[in-house]
Amino acid sequence: MRPVALLTDFGLSDHYVGVLHAVLERDAPGLARIDLGHGVDPGDIWDASFQLRCAWPDLPDDCVVMAVVDPGVGTSRRVVALAVGDRFLVAPDNGLAAAVGPTATVVTLDWRRMGLDEPSPTFHGRDLFAPAAARLAAGADLLSLGEVVAVDTLLPCPLPEPNQGALGIDAVILHVDRFGNLVTSVRTVNHPDVTMATFAGRMARRVRTYAEAQPDEVVLLEGSAGYLELAVNCGSAAEATGLERGDTVVFSD
Amino acid sequence: MRPVALLTDFGLSDHYVGVLHAVLERDAPGLARIDLGHGVDPGDIWDASFQLRCAWPDLPDDCVVMAVVDPGVGTSRRVVALAVGDRFLVAPDNGLAAAVGPTATVVTLDWRRMGLDEPSPTFHGRDLFAPAAARLAAGADLLSLGEVVAVDTLLPCPLPEPNQGALGIDAVILHVDRFGNLVTSVRTVNHPDVTMATFAGRMARRVRTYAEAQPDEVVLLEGSAGYLELAVNCGSAAEATGLERGDTVVFSD
Amino acid sequence: MRPVALLTDFGLSDHYVGVLHAVLERDAPGLARIDLGHGVDPGDIWDASFQLRCAWPDLPDDCVVMAVVDPGVGTSRRVVALAVGDRFLVAPDNGLAAAVGPTATVVTLDWRRMGLDEPSPTFHGRDLFAPAAARLAAGADLLSLGEVVAVDTLLPCPLPEPNQGALGIDAVILHVDRFGNLVTSVRTVNHPDVTMATFAGRMARRVRTYAEAQPDEVVLLEGSAGYLELAVNCGSAAEATGLERGDTVVFSD
Repeated sequence: MRPVALLTDFGLSDHYVGVLHAVLERDAPGLARIDLGHGVDPGDIWDASFQLRCAWPDLPDDCVVMAVVDPGVGTSRRVVALAVGDRFLVAPDNGLAAAVGPTATVVTLDWRRMGLDEPSPTFHGRDLFAPAAARLAAGADLLSLGEVVAVDTLLPCPLPEPNQGALGIDAVILHVDRFGNLVTSVRTVNHPDVTMATFAGRMARRVRTYAEAQPDEVVLLEGSAGYLELAVNCGSAAEATGLERGDTVVFSD
Repeated sequence: MRPVALLTDFGLSDHYVGVLHAVLERDAPGLARIDLGHGVDPGDIWDASFQLRCAWPDLPDDCVVMAVVDPGVGTSRRVVALAVGDRFLVAPDNGLAAAVGPTATVVTLDWRRMGLDEPSPTFHGRDLFAPAAARLAAGADLLSLGEVVAVDTLLPCPLPEPNQGALGIDAVILHVDRFGNLVTSVRTVNHPDVTMATFAGRMARRVRTYAEAQPDEVVLLEGSAGYLELAVNCGSAAEATGLERGDTVVFSD
Repeated sequence: MRPVALLTDFGLSDHYVGVLHAVLERDAPGLARIDLGHGVDPGDIWDASFQLRCAWPDLPDDCVVMAVVDPGVGTSRRVVALAVGDRFLVAPDNGLAAAVGPTATVVTLDWRRMGLDEPSPTFHGRDLFAPAAARLAAGADLLSLGEVVAVDTLLPCPLPEPNQGALGIDAVILHVDRFGNLVTSVRTVNHPDVTMATFAGRMARRVRTYAEAQPDEVVLLEGSAGYLELAVNCGSAAEATGLERGDTVVFSD
């Protein structure tokens, strides 16, 4: 049986995440369940896409991911399942389904074809995503879940890509983590020679580890998911700079 | 082995929930564990009862639920285990044990009969509830856990039921969820023809999905657990209305 | 397969804890995973040591614990694995590795010997701790993970021990829990005859259960992990007293 990983914006104060786990265990008893996270802000497709991208390389090769950040629940937006490498992703077609890839095969989930009751208008995570993930975990064929749709009809992922600008690479802050690290949109694998960040009239030099920073110094380094980030050793770069998600950083060699 | 679902008011900042999982794994290695939630406010039997009721229909048929919201820990209040359909519920006899039903058989847990050490005065979740749940998960008979008690001696669930009033059905708000939805005490299955909610001098019309609402409009719809709720599409009905748990809403056809 | 328990300061708003689970499932499919907690404040070795000590007695006998509160990630601080009884602990050598014991065997993790890629500078939890824990869970010998080091080279645990003072036993508050209980550094097993606590000019009498307290009375009792704590029945001793972690309490017979 494949493991199933869950990413939602449900938070942990209600019973909603528990219900997803219950449905997975009900429909595929004994399957391994992995909580990728439920702290995405309500409806925040950007952050969900970011977290999914960051976690993706470390998932089990045969993992099924269900990503339920779905402000359009109950509308005509599609819920799709994709094959990406040996993994499957079940997600709304609101940009989140296109956060990882490439994919060769996409189906739009069809509750009738899956033999399900008609989903409620408000909780497709429970009524559609989780049953689909459980079926995939138990070995179901992707094509048994719904109709094939063209890959190029998926809504694009909202995460902005960096651009070459006049002064360097123009990037934005994609995510502020619990430690106050400011993660930007630049992958070091694409820009290995960056040595300097400029932001809000200030600069930060490139280091390899947090510990190379002076006390309270804002530094630039490769974060754990391969993106350049601003950090303060044993402190918060968010507090030290006042920068927020969406703010601009320029990188130069 | 049966799966075990956990609902507590322990929060996630301490090690208490981790210890419950540790005891379950220690006493019944390999059993499936489901976190229904640990975000209930300390001692809030009302909200625990609500969340248990909402999650109940989606649990695996053979599930064992341990619900530890137990402000009377260490007093003479009973801890009971009940058979409800093919499921078991382990809960304090403080109203929470009566949140779902009906039940034919109730036993009051007896640590001596279960072969346990005497429970500590302050952590029965670890010392009594979890060992009992693990035994039930592993196939123990309910009667092996303690003495049978009369069903009608259980304290009633504190959740208020709606009443027929002069202007319609008088309901109260049972729960405010993470999205700001205001979930009321009226089940749509009992009152399918409701088309209007009145509250604090305002009105809301009935819709089927969040998306039918105008921007910022407070609407009335059936929520995911079958209760009528007030909602704002991609917004917070709690913020829009100022209503809180316990406040009154009147429904009319 | 041994179960693996996780304790970190990662919080639950990012994908970091999810990635640890993913790596464990990837490297040792089907192993039981237990979240001891992820709410430790960033870099707070004291609190992590406390929570680890409190949970330790209740863990499965064959458990592997990975404790990742590691402000020195990327520096030359060692990551070690220890045998403690039949359990293993994987932790940074920053005091946390010495929180439980005694141990006879300690190794310093060596990614080359474990056949791993070179760890990133910023996420050893993913790249070193979790692969080591998965290997131990699957039956690997401790000595296969790295070089043996002398036990007495481990940094000592930062938790203060109580002292005999002029007026009684001088203790400090080690932890304030979600319920507002103030847990001190005195184990009742070492000081069974304590009947009184003095703090900030006030006194509290010893009781056995929360329910013996008068309304709003601050009382002294044995908490669930065997430490003396100050508590208010159905209330918060932290709010009632204004005391915080690190503050002093004097116990007397």
